[in-house]
Amino acid sequence: MRQRNVKNKNDIINNSKYIINNPYELKGKWHKVFNNDNPIYIEIGMGKGKFILENALKYPNINFIGIEKYDSIIALAIKKIEVNELSNLRLIRIDANEIDDIFDKEIDKIYLNFSDPWPKPRHEKRRLTSSLFLDKYDNIFRNDKVIEFKTDNELLFEYSLISFNEHNYKIKEINLNLHKENVPDNIMTEYEEKFSSLNNVIYYVKVEK
Amino acid sequence: MRQRNVKNKNDIINNSKYIINNPYELKGKWHKVFNNDNPIYIEIGMGKGKFILENALKYPNINFIGIEKYDSIIALAIKKIEVNELSNLRLIRIDANEIDDIFDKEIDKIYLNFSDPWPKPRHEKRRLTSSLFLDKYDNIFRNDKVIEFKTDNELLFEYSLISFNEHNYKIKEINLNLHKENVPDNIMTEYEEKFSSLNNVIYYVKVEK
Repeated sequence: MRQRNVKNKNDIINNSKYIINNPYELKGKWHKVFNNDNPIYIEIGMGKGKFILENALKYPNINFIGIEKYDSIIALAIKKIEVNELSNLRLIRIDANEIDDIFDKEIDKIYLNFSDPWPKPRHEKRRLTSSLFLDKYDNIFRNDKVIEFKTDNELLFEYSLISFNEHNYKIKEINLNLHKENVPDNIMTEYEEKFSSLNNVIYYVKVEK
Repeated sequence: MRQRNVKNKNDIINNSKYIINNPYELKGKWHKVFNNDNPIYIEIGMGKGKFILENALKYPNINFIGIEKYDSIIALAIKKIEVNELSNLRLIRIDANEIDDIFDKEIDKIYLNFSDPWPKPRHEKRRLTSSLFLDKYDNIFRNDKVIEFKTDNELLFEYSLISFNEHNYKIKEINLNLHKENVPDNIMTEYEEKFSSLNNVIYYVKVEK
């Protein structure tokens, strides 16, 4: 996501009750943060936070953690989220590569929404559905491994289906034109609203192993 | 495929050197028909035969068998094929349900092209990628199980991807818009030429187990 500089972003981040500043110390202990044993769903690359916020509002019995690496973007997400009082939502500012330094066998679902396609072959490892990342995810899931993935990028979606299968994930739900009909439970990201209004095809898949 | 009646269809079928009239007797012995041990690829629901004919012409070291149940359609295919002298092509007139009465551990690849989508849930078993058919295919493959599938029907494609994964097939190649770019090795069916000219999206997948 291209960054727009946000004034006072450090102040916004440092003063937010939603931000977890010591995520490495919480590895394996994230249920203590929420004071319950509810499932924990994470979104890697949450962008401006609409998707994770609406999920947290809609599903109070699930804990949500939004992950984003860019200061300016996470500051925008905080501004959006801060007006709510939510005990089931936290945000972490890390690079996705560190995901398995933060979590250990405690995540129940991963959302990947409109991830950077990194189209050049030499950047393949940076794709959030690459073998490198799927190996990392193996270490952070509690029991069943569930990934839900949305994108408007055809090549990334094709690549990801093959990659999921290589890692023994099976397709449980798939929609090759998500906005063709109204899908009542679909919570849209900022990107999704924009791309859908341009009539881009949105691909969706849920995989499990 | 809707049938147009073909005059003299029985004469055409009975006089063709490409038709195998006793397929049940050849179960497990199809290599004798071709007098070699080359791979055998079959197309279930070959329609008017363009795809299987062009494959047979292009790949002389592979044996091809086209399967079609409708007399009038197979007669049209014969008229197209009969002008060629091909030792690596045969046609069978059976219902796909009988596929495992015809073959036994001797097929190397199955092509399914623009199969009838049977959209109603109560007709699910008739879809050529249903569990019922995937079970039958298990019995006819020699070693590796390879299926290549093309369709313009989004719901059938989504259904099939899930069904393939349920049967432990893995996606090896996939293209969610086959005609977006020129795919040099793609041999088109009659339907495919027609649908593509209407700018329908054509889906392609190759799965293996």
